[in-house]
Amino acid sequence: MAVAIDTSLETKAINSIRTLSIDAVQQANSGHPGMPLGAAPMAYVLWTEFLRHNPRDPKWPNRDRFVLSGGHGSMLLYSLLYLTGYDLPLNELKRFRQLGSMTPGHPELGRAPGVEVTTGPLGQGFGNGVGMAIAEAFLAARYNRPDHEIINHSTYGIVSDGDIMEGVAAESASLAGHLGLGKLIYLYDQNEITLAGTSGISFTEDVPKRFEALGWHTRTIDGQDTDAVRRALDEARAEHARPSLICSQTIIGFGSPKANTFGVHGSPLGPEAVKATKEALDWPLTPPFYVPDDALALFRGAEEAGDAAQHEWQSRFEAYLAAYPTEAAELIRALAGELPEGWDADLPKWEAGGKPLATRKASGETIAAFFPKIPTFIGGSADLNPSTNTGMKGAGDFQRPDGNPDPSIQQGLLGGPWGYDGRNIHFGVREHAMGSAVNGMAAHGGVIPFGATFLVFSDYCRPAIRLAALSHLKSIFVFTHDSIAVGEDGPTHEPVEQVMSLLTIPNLTLVRPADANETVDAWRIALTNSGATAVILSRQDLAILDRTGATGTALQGGYILAGGEGDPDVVLIGTGSEVELAVNARGLLAEHGVQARVVSLPSWEVFDTQKAAYKRRVLGPAGTPRVSVEAGTTLGWCRYTGARGAHVGIDTFGASGPGAEVLAHFGFTKERVAATALRLLGKDDLARQIDQTDGGDTAGEEAEGDEGHS
Amino acid sequence: MAVAIDTSLETKAINSIRTLSIDAVQQANSGHPGMPLGAAPMAYVLWTEFLRHNPRDPKWPNRDRFVLSGGHGSMLLYSLLYLTGYDLPLNELKRFRQLGSMTPGHPELGRAPGVEVTTGPLGQGFGNGVGMAIAEAFLAARYNRPDHEIINHSTYGIVSDGDIMEGVAAESASLAGHLGLGKLIYLYDQNEITLAGTSGISFTEDVPKRFEALGWHTRTIDGQDTDAVRRALDEARAEHARPSLICSQTIIGFGSPKANTFGVHGSPLGPEAVKATKEALDWPLTPPFYVPDDALALFRGAEEAGDAAQHEWQSRFEAYLAAYPTEAAELIRALAGELPEGWDADLPKWEAGGKPLATRKASGETIAAFFPKIPTFIGGSADLNPSTNTGMKGAGDFQRPDGNPDPSIQQGLLGGPWGYDGRNIHFGVREHAMGSAVNGMAAHGGVIPFGATFLVFSDYCRPAIRLAALSHLKSIFVFTHDSIAVGEDGPTHEPVEQVMSLLTIPNLTLVRPADANETVDAWRIALTNSGATAVILSRQDLAILDRTGATGTALQGGYILAGGEGDPDVVLIGTGSEVELAVNARGLLAEHGVQARVVSLPSWEVFDTQKAAYKRRVLGPAGTPRVSVEAGTTLGWCRYTGARGAHVGIDTFGASGPGAEVLAHFGFTKERVAATALRLLGKDDLARQIDQTDGGDTAGEEAEGDEGHS
Repeated sequence: MAVAIDTSLETKAINSIRTLSIDAVQQANSGHPGMPLGAAPMAYVLWTEFLRHNPRDPKWPNRDRFVLSGGHGSMLLYSLLYLTGYDLPLNELKRFRQLGSMTPGHPELGRAPGVEVTTGPLGQGFGNGVGMAIAEAFLAARYNRPDHEIINHSTYGIVSDGDIMEGVAAESASLAGHLGLGKLIYLYDQNEITLAGTSGISFTEDVPKRFEALGWHTRTIDGQDTDAVRRALDEARAEHARPSLICSQTIIGFGSPKANTFGVHGSPLGPEAVKATKEALDWPLTPPFYVPDDALALFRGAEEAGDAAQHEWQSRFEAYLAAYPTEAAELIRALAGELPEGWDADLPKWEAGGKPLATRKASGETIAAFFPKIPTFIGGSADLNPSTNTGMKGAGDFQRPDGNPDPSIQQGLLGGPWGYDGRNIHFGVREHAMGSAVNGMAAHGGVIPFGATFLVFSDYCRPAIRLAALSHLKSIFVFTHDSIAVGEDGPTHEPVEQVMSLLTIPNLTLVRPADANETVDAWRIALTNSGATAVILSRQDLAILDRTGATGTALQGGYILAGGEGDPDVVLIGTGSEVELAVNARGLLAEHGVQARVVSLPSWEVFDTQKAAYKRRVLGPAGTPRVSVEAGTTLGWCRYTGARGAHVGIDTFGASGPGAEVLAHFGFTKERVAATALRLLGKDDLARQIDQTDGGDTAGEEAEGDEGHS
Repeated sequence: MAVAIDTSLETKAINSIRTLSIDAVQQANSGHPGMPLGAAPMAYVLWTEFLRHNPRDPKWPNRDRFVLSGGHGSMLLYSLLYLTGYDLPLNELKRFRQLGSMTPGHPELGRAPGVEVTTGPLGQGFGNGVGMAIAEAFLAARYNRPDHEIINHSTYGIVSDGDIMEGVAAESASLAGHLGLGKLIYLYDQNEITLAGTSGISFTEDVPKRFEALGWHTRTIDGQDTDAVRRALDEARAEHARPSLICSQTIIGFGSPKANTFGVHGSPLGPEAVKATKEALDWPLTPPFYVPDDALALFRGAEEAGDAAQHEWQSRFEAYLAAYPTEAAELIRALAGELPEGWDADLPKWEAGGKPLATRKASGETIAAFFPKIPTFIGGSADLNPSTNTGMKGAGDFQRPDGNPDPSIQQGLLGGPWGYDGRNIHFGVREHAMGSAVNGMAAHGGVIPFGATFLVFSDYCRPAIRLAALSHLKSIFVFTHDSIAVGEDGPTHEPVEQVMSLLTIPNLTLVRPADANETVDAWRIALTNSGATAVILSRQDLAILDRTGATGTALQGGYILAGGEGDPDVVLIGTGSEVELAVNARGLLAEHGVQARVVSLPSWEVFDTQKAAYKRRVLGPAGTPRVSVEAGTTLGWCRYTGARGAHVGIDTFGASGPGAEVLAHFGFTKERVAATALRLLGKDDLARQIDQTDGGDTAGEEAEGDEGHS
């Protein structure tokens, strides 16, 4: 009986996923067996019947994307990758969670082929999928032509109870519903068990109703019923105007003695329970990692199918290339992650001493100069375009093409198209979803995504920034209003610790330009960086600095702006808005016969990649007295100033008042900088004289106080 | 005609709020006039007819709480505080957003009486209100007695479109709905205008339906219709089992020429528009800050009413005191923020060399020893109780008393009551809502709240941690699984930068105890600290350290654990799990004739409050060679090691593998620590010898590399 055979084969295939997963967890004696046991049926249906992918070319641009948002269920994904023929040897499953293996505890982008994004921190994968669907919709709208559908794929995900509880997922779901991302389909593994117990102890909302309120299509099914999964996936694929959430009721730890308990969520079953589970699944107890040949053959069908699908696409792409060579060339370059030639031909320059300009405004002018030349540069802000200066005029609004549910605002504010071909993304007051979507867009490829908000609110998307850095994603974060100079909005809106706390994140390149011209270099760094970049910009106008004495540029991360001749008495190291302050302090010191050098250090990460000799040349020989000048926490600055160094910074929260008054109140005056340098040089009398001319407060002193320890 | 007069007086009162607000914004030439203009009618009804408060005693414990979550509308609150008679002089309204005024750009706890919490970062106030309602429900359940209802107040809030879009509000709303917090009533100022435009460009969900799905009572009204506001508030107060969201449709900038535009959201109207607005409101153009006597008298009625209400409560409290002296005394002490005598009588001690114990487990035993003595210590984890060891066995579960919507889990996991008198709060996988609720509980007073999760996920609640620090709230955050020793879960779950990035937050006291005994001290610090504390704990077992050579304790923030005699050749400064490593390295160095001192530095903030002489004594004289040993980023450590210092740390992300292997891989071995010290002392040959016995990687080298600059 064919049906019977199919059914038994299907069951064997599903149980292959289950037993591979529990064997690997048991061998590692660490991991999460519960989710793979419960989610195996829906994963089997999705991966063998719906997911369009090619295990032989994991980078096929038009593949469907799959995100395992509950990354703790990583063995489910690793099992699927091995079974469907990705270059992930069975031996690597046996090395699950071992140092240097391709199978770390949570999926990591770049470790095993087929892993689309790094997941584990709950809710992030949910948001990444939204970003992938945005990238797909944009590329399809921009590059497809009548009879030439080159970009057309779905984004699938398996999300967990924990994902659904996270705010980043809530924000992302609201955004996806607003945008009507119909090709986004999530299977919600609704096992109602979390690490601490049944989710009901903290989570009793009506999830489908919530998602319907957000504009999603939903369906609730029995996740063990493969036919129900098929029907639900068919239905979701037929729904083009709304993202889909398939609430798939599963049994965590299915088949194991610990089924339906939180004990099976995050701990190995133990040899006894593994045995009992295999018995319950009518599975041979030995060998471990056993997969029946016919089950393996069923999964490996993905290779042939994937090759065929990709070849069919390739031939269509060649027709497209013939019919639309320009668009095709543009798309090929974008997918390769290359910038168009001449992208930087018209970047602005400003004359020294010209009209002072906020770096956020200089950034706006820089973006305006390159965005027409980089057609796949897309992004926006968390509801702050007018303040972050990140709107691209004429590039249109990324919105659902079938008309906005709110008819009152059919007009795009920025001009240009209103649809998926719009390049200005309105993320809403959803910083975390923005960060997570930007990462998803970067992981999808073909676009260069950015997100913008105030620097102080980088805290709201910090988990996404961390994952961008960890995953080496080309995500660009634009953070404006970068110091206490924000002024009247007060300490809740004045970043003090954010620059230094972002500097603690490995792999993240931070650039805080000192003026309009350095801002252009900041964008050069961001756009040519293969990884994640944070560009930190001022709200207030800054002088256009005189570069006649400069021995380098911001592109080197740090350079001598003034006073390069010989060995100076003191080196003033500034970033961003405080470089101008250092320049003015240098003049004041000169009046007192002290030769100061001013170093602009917009990017520690870039500077640290320079040769040691260059760094010594810039910072001066060891033991050179150095003063850091940055309107932020002084913690960490001793890295460049050394023990004999001093700091002008702020180690308290800010205050509400006019920006200039706040800066003076906290000691950001040329007098205080000069006095700090003079004290460092032992010229306390001179320092006192100068201090008397200064209305500043004691921030500088406090900073110096730090040095008492060394 | 009384009605007509009432109506005109009502209108005058409402317009007094409006004109005070726009005059103050205009005088500051900075601020947000739109929200006060639109929200004035509902604010008028709430503050004059519903809010039970006493302007003459802003700290009356049983007052209703009011949270202005959209803190950018601060002038609305300042106007109400002045008008109803709080000690906020009109002159301070004229100093809006000026340095040192009582009226900063966003409301700051402690600046003006009647400001219950610091708001501005969107969504936080929403979450704070949930925490306040939790605190009220707990105190009422624990201390009220039949015929003695001592604690019984509502928590009101005005929330904005931006608040509603934030993930922290989504998490908080789901939690509040689950808990059935019926005394929580939010007026949603639904003006559909945000900073960047109409909210419809990014926000088109069905908000009432979403909140109904979360278990809220909702009602949509015309926010300009005061009778509709009255009816909705009456209805909300009559709803006891569900929190209420009153979607109040308002017109941002009502009465001004810029009404219903985003231009009126965040910029002063300008003199012309102020004039036009006053004309439209039929208001005298001069003087500015004009309030009609009868309108002022109407508002000032709050003083009499407040006094009367408080006196009535006071007399009831005295009856309670007579009938239940023990409970009353306990409540009085709790409201005063004092710890019960003898709270620390039974804190555990561990013998040196005893069975190694993870500090998270030592923390669990410490909590078990004091929680029965501190009846108002309440809190829980973001779904990680079994891992964070923060469950209080027998203290019950904080849950809605009318039965959990999920009948399958009526049993509390931890024993004890299941209701509002339970002390274990199950926050769900909602770290941000947890942080925000903990802050709200702390701001409410009467309870000592804590929240717990893994250290790496402190990033998820960082904005709440920042506000706790900024507001000097006694919020306790417990962060476990504190380093790459987490192991198998891999880099997504291994904190590397978190300790240092938390150290950059002003006012936050961080404690990372080295062993079980230091963990007890960490809790002493947290419970006696008037501000916010983060306790950082290990997942893995740590040796119980030998204190025979110790010259102090963790209560001093830092102390000499071993090698206090004379001036050592080198000082090894460790925190947490790395102190044990330093001790072992000291032994190794002794074998090679090098005298090393081991300093345990669990809390930088506490150590920095010690006298300079003590700090010098501990760290050794200036120029002493020092090595920091911490399994985290080395950035910032030069603060204590100085220029001649070296670091054993990790400046990259971690890796997935067994914890011990991961530690060794990144160089956290006694050999690497000893070798780093020897290199620092110029004994490179010895260092090489020792290195050869070590399987470690290069983290230590990298860290030393940092020193190249100084």
